[in-house]
Amino acid sequence: MGALVSADEIAKPFRDSVREAVRALGRRVTLRGILASERRASGVYAEYTAKGCADVGIHFDLVHVGRLEVEAAVKAANDDEDVHGVIVYYPVFGGERDRTIQDEVSPEKDVEGMNARWAYLLYNDVRTVQGDKKTILPCTPLAIVKALEALAVYVPGAPPGTQVRGKTITIFNRSEVVGRPLAAMLAHDGATVYSFDIDGVLRYDGHKTKETPITRAEALASSDIIITGVPSRDFAIVKKDEVKAGSVCINFSTFKNIDDDVIERARAFLPRVGPITVAMLLRNTLRLFENFHSGPLTGP
Amino acid sequence: MGALVSADEIAKPFRDSVREAVRALGRRVTLRGILASERRASGVYAEYTAKGCADVGIHFDLVHVGRLEVEAAVKAANDDEDVHGVIVYYPVFGGERDRTIQDEVSPEKDVEGMNARWAYLLYNDVRTVQGDKKTILPCTPLAIVKALEALAVYVPGAPPGTQVRGKTITIFNRSEVVGRPLAAMLAHDGATVYSFDIDGVLRYDGHKTKETPITRAEALASSDIIITGVPSRDFAIVKKDEVKAGSVCINFSTFKNIDDDVIERARAFLPRVGPITVAMLLRNTLRLFENFHSGPLTGP
Repeated sequence: MGALVSADEIAKPFRDSVREAVRALGRRVTLRGILASERRASGVYAEYTAKGCADVGIHFDLVHVGRLEVEAAVKAANDDEDVHGVIVYYPVFGGERDRTIQDEVSPEKDVEGMNARWAYLLYNDVRTVQGDKKTILPCTPLAIVKALEALAVYVPGAPPGTQVRGKTITIFNRSEVVGRPLAAMLAHDGATVYSFDIDGVLRYDGHKTKETPITRAEALASSDIIITGVPSRDFAIVKKDEVKAGSVCINFSTFKNIDDDVIERARAFLPRVGPITVAMLLRNTLRLFENFHSGPLTGP
Repeated sequence: MGALVSADEIAKPFRDSVREAVRALGRRVTLRGILASERRASGVYAEYTAKGCADVGIHFDLVHVGRLEVEAAVKAANDDEDVHGVIVYYPVFGGERDRTIQDEVSPEKDVEGMNARWAYLLYNDVRTVQGDKKTILPCTPLAIVKALEALAVYVPGAPPGTQVRGKTITIFNRSEVVGRPLAAMLAHDGATVYSFDIDGVLRYDGHKTKETPITRAEALASSDIIITGVPSRDFAIVKKDEVKAGSVCINFSTFKNIDDDVIERARAFLPRVGPITVAMLLRNTLRLFENFHSGPLTGP
């Protein structure tokens, strides 16, 4: 019998670490939230952000604007020296229009790591900028890597390219926000990743991506790690009998993508990731402050 | 009776000017094309690019790759000092996935002006970089501005913000590729722009964008300039009786969006823009070379 894992427990040490670092800084670190979406999920994420910030001592400054004012709000946040991180709650318009907004957030304040500059570095496996400053990674993919660390199937101290070497991973989701960056990150760290979406299956190995004829059943049966993030009730839930004995199963969809009884075969099942994502958002805010905004205080 | 205007005639002086400048440079200017799409329209655009480059003396280097190799091809082009401009023929995957590819093209080689950096400058009405180097604008919006110049409803020598002052413009299309940048450019240059798409109507004025209750009939009847780009047979074609007498009408869709007999009321009707778009692509290639790649020759 495997373990049902709590996302809050995995998140806790990261929150503790951010809280201590913020306290040690002795400076006010400000995250500006920009909320225009009327979709309930966006408002909920803003509430989680507020609670997370309060918990670790980051000043959260949430502004509500009409969707046509989002870009002016982004620019104001980019230009405001007292703002160190910016998060826009999507969807605003949805689709490609929102990509333009993501790209308008200054990379040096982009706590979500969604900006074109960070994405380019991620896909090209560049891990530091300006010498030794670590890049910003998108929050949910990073949260999943941290969960894999906590579940002892990812070795953080190992040399780059070997942290998850020899592991086979199946991911259901290849969105630009989570599934595709996650597949690239895990492949860069040594795994073989099967990435499923409605467009087909891709196999990620190191820096190579190829089409592959593998079936769902074959991929699941051979995977040490299974990650699901399909935002649909129509997805055929991953069943106990499909997974490899001793595997680690993670669901980041708000829909149930994995049957609870997989723990009868799996070593661990993490049914949600949200609290770890919020912890990574706080961690990215701190990292941006340290990397780009922690110079000497100016002014009188 | 108005004039039916030829896109080739408007394009010609731009091609002549690029040809002369390339000849005067005495250097090989190279545009790398990356074609992965199987959609016929993409191949046709590549053929037009080849013909345009041959005409003006730009070296066009077209590579055919699988769609999973597009990003490696982009990176190779970015890293190749002998490549001065890069064009990827879309769609590759389509949607947001293609936005990531657009953003991976180096801004200094992005002949389409689609990269996040150029888009940010466009929407923030920044017209030069690194002192006095003019920014790169997306080809079709730029082609339409050049058409308006040729049709004497846009004054290129006027101070920024006044070139099209006092004009009312209706645009059917608010895509991230054409309609939205075009609306912003024309509003920044002084026009009042009504932007229609399936999501509603927006009014662009200077640097402000607002929702507006104006109807199609009201917008068309009051517009000095009408621009259509709806990629659908279902669009209700703009009819003669809808347009203002003396207006200028431009269609950039590959579908017929404006009735031919509008010229009985309009001053001019430009039924297609493609050849001017290609001329702008050549012009952007030259500009990128001059701005970013025209340093002294290096090596033995």
